[in-house]
Amino acid sequence: VLNPVMTNTITEDIEVLVFLPQNNSFLFSYARVAPAIRYAQQKMKADGNQYSGFHFNIHFENSDCVNDALFTLLDRSCGQKPDLILGPVCEYEAAAVVRLASYWKIPVISAGALATGFGNKKTEFSHLTRIAPSYVKMAETFTAMFEHFTWKSALLVYEDDKEERNCYFTLEGVYHLMADYTIKTYQFSEEDPLNVDDILQNIYDIEVMIMCMGADKIREIMLAAHRRQLTSGNYMFFNVELFNSSSYGNGSWKRGDKYDNDARQAYASLNTVTLLRTVKPEFENFLIEMTKSIEKAGLNDCKDCGNVNMFVEGFHDAMLLYAIALHEAMKSGYSKKNGTEITSRMWNRTFEGIAGQVSMDVNGDRNGDFSLMAMTNVEAGAYEVVANYFGVNGTFQLLPAFNIDHFTLKGRHKEYPEMPD
Amino acid sequence: VLNPVMTNTITEDIEVLVFLPQNNSFLFSYARVAPAIRYAQQKMKADGNQYSGFHFNIHFENSDCVNDALFTLLDRSCGQKPDLILGPVCEYEAAAVVRLASYWKIPVISAGALATGFGNKKTEFSHLTRIAPSYVKMAETFTAMFEHFTWKSALLVYEDDKEERNCYFTLEGVYHLMADYTIKTYQFSEEDPLNVDDILQNIYDIEVMIMCMGADKIREIMLAAHRRQLTSGNYMFFNVELFNSSSYGNGSWKRGDKYDNDARQAYASLNTVTLLRTVKPEFENFLIEMTKSIEKAGLNDCKDCGNVNMFVEGFHDAMLLYAIALHEAMKSGYSKKNGTEITSRMWNRTFEGIAGQVSMDVNGDRNGDFSLMAMTNVEAGAYEVVANYFGVNGTFQLLPAFNIDHFTLKGRHKEYPEMPD
Repeated sequence: VLNPVMTNTITEDIEVLVFLPQNNSFLFSYARVAPAIRYAQQKMKADGNQYSGFHFNIHFENSDCVNDALFTLLDRSCGQKPDLILGPVCEYEAAAVVRLASYWKIPVISAGALATGFGNKKTEFSHLTRIAPSYVKMAETFTAMFEHFTWKSALLVYEDDKEERNCYFTLEGVYHLMADYTIKTYQFSEEDPLNVDDILQNIYDIEVMIMCMGADKIREIMLAAHRRQLTSGNYMFFNVELFNSSSYGNGSWKRGDKYDNDARQAYASLNTVTLLRTVKPEFENFLIEMTKSIEKAGLNDCKDCGNVNMFVEGFHDAMLLYAIALHEAMKSGYSKKNGTEITSRMWNRTFEGIAGQVSMDVNGDRNGDFSLMAMTNVEAGAYEVVANYFGVNGTFQLLPAFNIDHFTLKGRHKEYPEMPD
Repeated sequence: VLNPVMTNTITEDIEVLVFLPQNNSFLFSYARVAPAIRYAQQKMKADGNQYSGFHFNIHFENSDCVNDALFTLLDRSCGQKPDLILGPVCEYEAAAVVRLASYWKIPVISAGALATGFGNKKTEFSHLTRIAPSYVKMAETFTAMFEHFTWKSALLVYEDDKEERNCYFTLEGVYHLMADYTIKTYQFSEEDPLNVDDILQNIYDIEVMIMCMGADKIREIMLAAHRRQLTSGNYMFFNVELFNSSSYGNGSWKRGDKYDNDARQAYASLNTVTLLRTVKPEFENFLIEMTKSIEKAGLNDCKDCGNVNMFVEGFHDAMLLYAIALHEAMKSGYSKKNGTEITSRMWNRTFEGIAGQVSMDVNGDRNGDFSLMAMTNVEAGAYEVVANYFGVNGTFQLLPAFNIDHFTLKGRHKEYPEMPD
């Protein structure tokens, strides 16, 4: 029986090369993300789906966050090149792969490659589409707050592991975007003992401290700041935790040690910027499927990881976005081998992703929505989302739990010092 | 007539790919360095030379200090690969090329790639031989001085252009090697106005300031230090100028402005670490030939550049070193295609280069000899070499012009405070 819907379908075989770590210690490991890519593939295959004519031939290759992905791509460089590359996520590995792929005009979509440098799409990263909001997009949340609350100065404190350098790249985004503010930076190495005195010495002529580091170190700094009476509203404290946000906020001050009570009070001054997560009905099924896959892989190790994170969603949506762009390009007479044309059709467009609307900017980078969390019940030590930032239109939305006092600098930081008559 | 020497000669065709910038603004541009490579080729071709059987087929390709070299290598990756790669010099471009070449086991010799990270020959840079002393080798001069003079702390101040980042990488070498000392760093961007106050604020609990930046900025800082009376022996000031040393030292304080007199006095406290240059009789002919080539190319633009710099010498000697190693390897039955074997034979050996002995360490990096220059006649504002550091045995040699007073910290920096009885 001839299916009338099928006859209109554009058919094409698409070679996809996916770089994900076999090592399960990553939030974007193969075991976590591959099920989402296959989920997208299955959905598109379904009868009646307008992309059912696309036959994705997906090759998963290891990414070790160093050079594996690069070398795999090189080894394939003399034979048939892939039509689409998904990943890598890690910055340095992605840089090498995207550089090559761009040179060969192969579209690359990654839920990583979040560092500021990848924003340069004019030359070496011309064929990169970033399906998750980059660090610079996150930084917009800070510029929106700084403008809203008329803050002027920030101290960026981060831990640098000198390998993946997530915190370095995270705050680099803030540094990059806040060129018009007074910004100081303080970095320390992961291995070094934390020198809290030295860090807090830098805050005295500063209003806002923005931190990116492990949860234990955040706690150590907040306890020290509390002891020095820096947590009474005379300074603002923020930490950035994009990927693993549920482990922050509620209960993150609690360790079951004798400092819990102090920490709870200190954290009353600590606000967290994290990804805004949206959910829609279709997402439920996705979540169930992902949870099954992850349980089957024996991966349900960390209770706060969440089975669906930004990377899992992102790579799912990457398949959709590519299909949309390829379909459109082919309808206009271009072939799948025209990576430049397909890439340009992935940019500056909005589509329905698995968890909600996905909006890509003109530069091929996803606009980001972020949440600001603050402690709203000090007695219970409980956090709530108090504001949201929406990247697509740059709006900063205050929620009912928002309390302006909490974000007003007190004491010596007078915004407009009164002049004597 | 049969030449009896020739019959013993090992013959081989060798494909050499050389990456040098066509852009003449580099000290290691094609126009400067290519004549030295051809000079070495000609000398080896001569009858009676033990390497006369080696026929080097040299392809010069452009290096733009970004990605040109990488892409050229990629374009050749499916056809015949070169047997030897010379260059690139620039750090980021070299990183990509050496990573690929190492993966393909092709020997790379560069007079650049001086950054600390390239010292990692265990994995991604396994086939890199560095024929010029790296920044870490230069840094040995500082550790030798710090030990000799029992200094304990340093402030590293550098200008970062965020492109080639020579000064960043230069002082990174010092930072890396001086982990056991108290080291502070201060970086500023090339575009930013120089904030001398902010820089000098950081020196107060420090003994030694080590600078890498443009000559005008050095002068500005030294003038400011002089005004603040920091140049009376209570602090040590150093600048590092490896490649263009003759532009420093003598006369570098002079600008023909009203500050010349102050600058001359300020520079009495400024010492310069630079490459130790040796010369031997054979060098004269090389120098004449290089000068001719450079004049022919119309390049004699800057009077202080010197027609033969570290890069010119280095790439000349690279050809020799490769010939020695290949010759030895082939005598032992290995082929030119065994890049790993040839590379290992370039390491941990000493040979006669064009300007003197070249000593390669076990890690395939050239041992460096450096000179310490200081002002020895304040009235004339004249500099002399007062000490040399020899990397091969780690000795620090004081010359007659050396004056211990000049390197003794005065005032509040008491090395061993006397304890009351």
